[in-house]
Amino acid sequence: MTRFGKHLDKSLKDLAYEPVWNVIHESKIDPHDIDIAFVGNAYGGLITGQESMRGQVVMREAGITRIPIINVENACASGSTAFYLAHRAVASGQVELALAVGVEKLFCDDTGRSLKALATSADMEIEGHMGILFAGIYAMRVRTHMERYGLTREQLAKVAVKNHDHGALNPHSQYRNRVTLEEVLNSRMIADPITLQMTCPLGDGGAALLIGTEEMTKRMGKRPVKIGSTVLGSFGFTRENEPGVTVRVSKKAYEEAGVTPQDIQVAEVHDAVAPVELFLYEELGFCGPGESGRMIDEGATWLGGKLPVNTSGGLTAKGHPAGATGLAQVAEIVWQMRGEAGERQINPPPNTGLVENGGGNVAGETAVVAVHILLGK
Amino acid sequence: MTRFGKHLDKSLKDLAYEPVWNVIHESKIDPHDIDIAFVGNAYGGLITGQESMRGQVVMREAGITRIPIINVENACASGSTAFYLAHRAVASGQVELALAVGVEKLFCDDTGRSLKALATSADMEIEGHMGILFAGIYAMRVRTHMERYGLTREQLAKVAVKNHDHGALNPHSQYRNRVTLEEVLNSRMIADPITLQMTCPLGDGGAALLIGTEEMTKRMGKRPVKIGSTVLGSFGFTRENEPGVTVRVSKKAYEEAGVTPQDIQVAEVHDAVAPVELFLYEELGFCGPGESGRMIDEGATWLGGKLPVNTSGGLTAKGHPAGATGLAQVAEIVWQMRGEAGERQINPPPNTGLVENGGGNVAGETAVVAVHILLGK
Repeated sequence: MTRFGKHLDKSLKDLAYEPVWNVIHESKIDPHDIDIAFVGNAYGGLITGQESMRGQVVMREAGITRIPIINVENACASGSTAFYLAHRAVASGQVELALAVGVEKLFCDDTGRSLKALATSADMEIEGHMGILFAGIYAMRVRTHMERYGLTREQLAKVAVKNHDHGALNPHSQYRNRVTLEEVLNSRMIADPITLQMTCPLGDGGAALLIGTEEMTKRMGKRPVKIGSTVLGSFGFTRENEPGVTVRVSKKAYEEAGVTPQDIQVAEVHDAVAPVELFLYEELGFCGPGESGRMIDEGATWLGGKLPVNTSGGLTAKGHPAGATGLAQVAEIVWQMRGEAGERQINPPPNTGLVENGGGNVAGETAVVAVHILLGK
Repeated sequence: MTRFGKHLDKSLKDLAYEPVWNVIHESKIDPHDIDIAFVGNAYGGLITGQESMRGQVVMREAGITRIPIINVENACASGSTAFYLAHRAVASGQVELALAVGVEKLFCDDTGRSLKALATSADMEIEGHMGILFAGIYAMRVRTHMERYGLTREQLAKVAVKNHDHGALNPHSQYRNRVTLEEVLNSRMIADPITLQMTCPLGDGGAALLIGTEEMTKRMGKRPVKIGSTVLGSFGFTRENEPGVTVRVSKKAYEEAGVTPQDIQVAEVHDAVAPVELFLYEELGFCGPGESGRMIDEGATWLGGKLPVNTSGGLTAKGHPAGATGLAQVAEIVWQMRGEAGERQINPPPNTGLVENGGGNVAGETAVVAVHILLGK
């Protein structure tokens, strides 16, 4: 992956070129062995003007042509969707080697345009007409959870402190500064109770992964990580006590991988605003309903805790170039499993990891949720 | 599929709803049996403002939620890409029933916006900076072919006459008028030698297909058509005498289906401007290089000829709502194979059919080409 950040000098092509060639060099494969490429991007049309053919244009720049190139868009889960399809293509025996690329350019000369682009990940005739933005949608969810389970503002803020602590150790992270609890709580209110320091920044970046058969990976220059499961699901018209999309999707991912939440030793989850990470602990089964506040208080998800979450810095600190996020999350787990995570390395390296990546909001729920389980050895 | 045309009163949601529910009713399946949906759309972001989450938004309107919904974009081959992925998901044993949807809204209150959207299917930093539009790109290819093989303007025009003749018989066609050779030749010059009557219209429309396992199709209300092969390929840096993308992709499609060009009894091909249909006869192996002019002169590809091409009216007459086109092409072949093509029915119904759908232009070549082969019985 590229470092996430404000790359005004880099085009969408540049942001894809770097991770694609990094992964090709690192794995020592012949690029002609790549059978298919899936390119995830969400907002490049509105930001760069390349509405159509984004994958073809960036792949041509990287010298990857002739093979099927498929543009996929699933909002902030676009990268995970590329990963899901690439994995399915290999696992089902269709191809031997698939490339998944996620890339996003959110910075441009007009921040208003960037924010408008992001707002299109909800139903423009419903949320769009209400004029509600994602921070507002998240704020409503957080408040409901606070009222139901007594989560405190300090607990919400602790997630931001943790993720900035982790990001400070990650050279790919957009923010590398640490923040204190007071700084998070006292930063500008964005959508009560979400403060500025709890939100992820706008970011540019790219990430790429190669997924191959066992046979193919034997030829690679790096120890492969096994994919236990990749599951994708959508919002539904959930009834009052029915499990939401994240619960449904993660349950299936655990089943397909043959593991339980208690087996997970590292996780990257979609903290588009830091407090959401708390619900995710509950929805992913890392703790029971209403227990996430205690989990962050006890330090369980900090580096050094029993289940470090977002060791990369998460979306809050590492940044969130939408289409790239899902693949960058997988990259972090891969690095942790290989013992290549540098200053933020979990020791001993974890063997069972989880990625959760969400995208969009339709009919009052996260529109797309992807959960992947990776197995180190 | 919907009738293609100018549907100013219909939204992207409406244009998807109609074909999705038509195919569900017709096949008599329980919509809850659908395991995955691929939604192809190219320009809906720029035309409707729904840049992200288009598939989720239109599927929600149709009542299809919870399952994986994946937005795919491959310019004018977006529908074929949805079909390719849906077929692969079923054929590889991942799922039992997949839905492929293609939908496009090109008409809006500003035709300039529609044309600008279409222009984004080339590299915006190359073709975009040159200011060249698709009619110009096609015109250059047609002129090269005319010079090399002596194709005449009358031969180019005959394709438009044929496809309007066919479209006049198709209730789903945007244009249902016939045109004479003189009318085509004397209509306004768009990009020499392409005249107005040789070009496809702007259009709105939607199409949907269900792809199921053999077991699943036994429960369906309509006789299924077997998919012999689905192949997708991209442009490459072709050398002077190297076969282009359409030749490469179609060769693979014939091989995978175990048929030859001589076995094809009906074809729907991508006549975005009518003259292109002639090269496609050659590239798809329906005739030898330079023989397509004679083929149209002899009437071989007219209804009643030995290989009717674009019995639906093709893009030239039926219309070309980009994301919907690939699936509408498959629908035409399915109807012909089932003997349900009404006034334009080939008798006896064909058993071996081909679909060719192209999209975009990158590095001087069609960016994406999809070829599918269908087997009636």
